[in-house]
Amino acid sequence: MKMLINVPETVVADGLRGLAAAHPDLNVDVDNRIVVRRDAPVAGKVGLVSGGGSGHEPLHGGFVGPGMLDAACPGEVFTSPVPDQMARAAAAVDSGAGVLFIIKNYTGDVLNFEMAAELAGDEGVQVTTVLVNDDVAVTDSLYTAGRRGTGGTLFVEKLAGAAAEEGAPLDRVAAIARQVNENSRSFGVALSACTTPAKGTPTFDLPPGELELGIGIHGEPGRERRAMMTSREIADAAVDAVVEDLRPDGPVLALVNGMGGTPLLELYGFNAEVHRALGERRVPVVRTLVGNYVTSLDMAGCSLTLCRVDDELLRLWDAPVRTPGLRWGC
Amino acid sequence: MKMLINVPETVVADGLRGLAAAHPDLNVDVDNRIVVRRDAPVAGKVGLVSGGGSGHEPLHGGFVGPGMLDAACPGEVFTSPVPDQMARAAAAVDSGAGVLFIIKNYTGDVLNFEMAAELAGDEGVQVTTVLVNDDVAVTDSLYTAGRRGTGGTLFVEKLAGAAAEEGAPLDRVAAIARQVNENSRSFGVALSACTTPAKGTPTFDLPPGELELGIGIHGEPGRERRAMMTSREIADAAVDAVVEDLRPDGPVLALVNGMGGTPLLELYGFNAEVHRALGERRVPVVRTLVGNYVTSLDMAGCSLTLCRVDDELLRLWDAPVRTPGLRWGC
Repeated sequence: MKMLINVPETVVADGLRGLAAAHPDLNVDVDNRIVVRRDAPVAGKVGLVSGGGSGHEPLHGGFVGPGMLDAACPGEVFTSPVPDQMARAAAAVDSGAGVLFIIKNYTGDVLNFEMAAELAGDEGVQVTTVLVNDDVAVTDSLYTAGRRGTGGTLFVEKLAGAAAEEGAPLDRVAAIARQVNENSRSFGVALSACTTPAKGTPTFDLPPGELELGIGIHGEPGRERRAMMTSREIADAAVDAVVEDLRPDGPVLALVNGMGGTPLLELYGFNAEVHRALGERRVPVVRTLVGNYVTSLDMAGCSLTLCRVDDELLRLWDAPVRTPGLRWGC
Repeated sequence: MKMLINVPETVVADGLRGLAAAHPDLNVDVDNRIVVRRDAPVAGKVGLVSGGGSGHEPLHGGFVGPGMLDAACPGEVFTSPVPDQMARAAAAVDSGAGVLFIIKNYTGDVLNFEMAAELAGDEGVQVTTVLVNDDVAVTDSLYTAGRRGTGGTLFVEKLAGAAAEEGAPLDRVAAIARQVNENSRSFGVALSACTTPAKGTPTFDLPPGELELGIGIHGEPGRERRAMMTSREIADAAVDAVVEDLRPDGPVLALVNGMGGTPLLELYGFNAEVHRALGERRVPVVRTLVGNYVTSLDMAGCSLTLCRVDDELLRLWDAPVRTPGLRWGC
């Protein structure tokens, strides 16, 4: 598999150098692998820190900035960052108002963020953690116990980020993050496997004419292999899986997310089918985001995330945000 | 090749339905294939219209909105839209201040936009046209005479769009568009071919271990096939090709563009090498955009566009824009 890289060993560092070159608003520590908003720590503001394996860009480094994360810790591709890195990020963004760790539910990430919370606590930083586990496809998987954290992470980071930007205290920001996670559900579909730079070949076999329903964002197995389906059929399957679990009784935000290798033209066509399917099920969609936001390197495919919102969460969604990956209102 | 579609025949219409569902700010006429900003025509404002074959999203439909295009006309995949469609778009956005057609240099697009300008003129709409031909790779190609229009189109649409939004008259908006085109140069590289829905198989053969330098955005042949190169080597080749032709003697805007199938992590790594290469050649980069903006369906690869700017063009770049694909300041 051909890649636009130098050598696999420098992919993450090269990406961070490029992020720094493009976004002077970010403070990128390439050696320690920490991306921090340049004005951190912001006086009186709760600091939001997330991170995880690289390969899901723009998540998380591309979501650092006013109105979203204060810092991100990228690990190697599909590999958890380390506790020292996270503790250093916490120290960099703590204004004294405390820090929230937003953790996608993968065993390595959870262990390392918990250790980092202890390390930061020893240094006098008050840390609260929130787990994101929105993926309804499977319980327990290759890299985790329980449900995986996927597209819902974007909603948690945006909505908790908006609350923190407005000056909400740590317990309130954490409560919003948990509320968002509890009200978010995702389901992903792969049309192709992804290829990590280190391996150089697809991480799993997906024969021509087949797709995998319920895929994770690292190529972990999903619910089932099926003969190739139309966009309409895939939308019905994804909407059914999410709606049956979430049981929305009011407005939702929708994230129609590309896995990295699917053209935007196809994602918009899929969005049309998602809106049709949600309309048939009487689920009102109040905001929709279409694009590559929580990716899996070059995997072809998509995921759907819905987040139930009340007036307050909708207001936080519309609040200004200024990051490389998500930007409006400023 | 597996695709997230229903049938090839409805790919463009499905995409437009999905665009409409996600972006209530746009008025999407699916039957006539016209995307218009909802508040058009804006009193006293010059209308900007572009268009071209689909498959390059977010170009052009994703660049419709305040500060950029007033309307876009998508054709079938890699196929020019038709004159009626363009004339209808012109009528929809004309406030009496006239309309600028921004045309990428492909023979079909040029012929059809010229015919549309006559049709619109017959209906009393004053139309001026500007051609974008920024690709330095080849002169004359599969679909055009002269140089192709590629990534520079984004700069033309953004900067002329900002001028129009500020109330500049038609001759001034057209002059800025021409100035931007004259000061923009692009060079693209393919690591894989793209696959159109209608054909279902890659549009050309690119053997394992080879890349193509100077590729177009429809898989047209480039300058040469070479054994696979590193990101550093590709950046040097692209920067040399662009800089030798543009000969910048001051600040530039840089677009580090993905062709659709290359992960953002790799694009950022490539951006690091582009900045290194430009630094070595003493070219100061004042703004950088990294991502999938002028794509070629699922093609893996990238392009580099540089645009020489003076203080006025830089100010227009920073001016507010609010479109699905490009958004800041509002």
